[in-house]
Amino acid sequence: MPEETLVAPRGLTLVFTGDGKGKTTAALGMALRAWGQGMKVLILQFIKGGWTCGELIAAEKLGPNFIMRQMGEGFIRGSSDKDLDVHRAAAQNALEEAKKAVREGAVDMVVLDEINCAVHYGLVDVEDVLDIIRSKPPGLHLVITGRNVANEVMGLADLVTEMREVKHPFAAGMPAQKGIEF
Amino acid sequence: MPEETLVAPRGLTLVFTGDGKGKTTAALGMALRAWGQGMKVLILQFIKGGWTCGELIAAEKLGPNFIMRQMGEGFIRGSSDKDLDVHRAAAQNALEEAKKAVREGAVDMVVLDEINCAVHYGLVDVEDVLDIIRSKPPGLHLVITGRNVANEVMGLADLVTEMREVKHPFAAGMPAQKGIEF
Repeated sequence: MPEETLVAPRGLTLVFTGDGKGKTTAALGMALRAWGQGMKVLILQFIKGGWTCGELIAAEKLGPNFIMRQMGEGFIRGSSDKDLDVHRAAAQNALEEAKKAVREGAVDMVVLDEINCAVHYGLVDVEDVLDIIRSKPPGLHLVITGRNVANEVMGLADLVTEMREVKHPFAAGMPAQKGIEF
Repeated sequence: MPEETLVAPRGLTLVFTGDGKGKTTAALGMALRAWGQGMKVLILQFIKGGWTCGELIAAEKLGPNFIMRQMGEGFIRGSSDKDLDVHRAAAQNALEEAKKAVREGAVDMVVLDEINCAVHYGLVDVEDVLDIIRSKPPGLHLVITGRNVANEVMGLADLVTEMREVKHPFAAGMPAQKGIEF
């Protein structure tokens, strides 16, 4: 009997971190795959907000089993203290949604997109993230993205992939473009 | 004027490589985002074949602008010489499809999933991959995945992300499961 079959399947906690492109994108791919398998997925975005990106349009087309909510206030770097309060309120709101979804267990996969950044910038307490991981229903898959993942979150995760930037078109002066970056 | 706006948008060549999970998944996310933006995408899988995975079911639901074809013969490691001939024929078939799609330019994004593995195992010549990158229509986005990307391919790519495995559930004896691994 191969070693892989010794442990029963259960909901996993997956982390995509690092400075390279592909974290949110990989989470979207996970969500699409799960949706294809008949699962219900919920994607909560902790930083992005008010941006009609391709994934949001796609989510609307995919129907009630693929829910995506942009709950952030946009880019944080360079924000004033007052702006940070606005970001914090938005992130806390997203956190409540996440807790509710995990508590109710009505979905099969929850993606907490860029929650690591929210923790890194002090918008969300790392303990709240750890609580979500610890308290999730056994069958629920949790996908956590964003650079600068906290060590404690890595410690509780089943899978961690670091997306390492080897080469990036912004560095070569290329603009962000439709269908690729958003 | 910010530096990003100095160069006009054009079709990019994106590479997802490395030993960590998230390469094919990120390509799926890219494809979903592009599809959301009204683009037509074609995903050709060079290794996977005959496997009813979540992304294949999802692709069928997404309709004619999201085409996915498994053209491989499955896992390669441990294959006999005779098996390798079968793998090679399948990969060459996928390569012809890729060349045709790029030549015709009827789609906006082509994903060559795990083509790096096909090159690594000698099923596809690296020169053929370089030809595809060099000859693609200017507006076409090309997404190339798989571990062990060739240096020459990296050299021509606009963006390269290495997915680095930090922690993986297989290592902890967890089985591959529906909606997550396939």
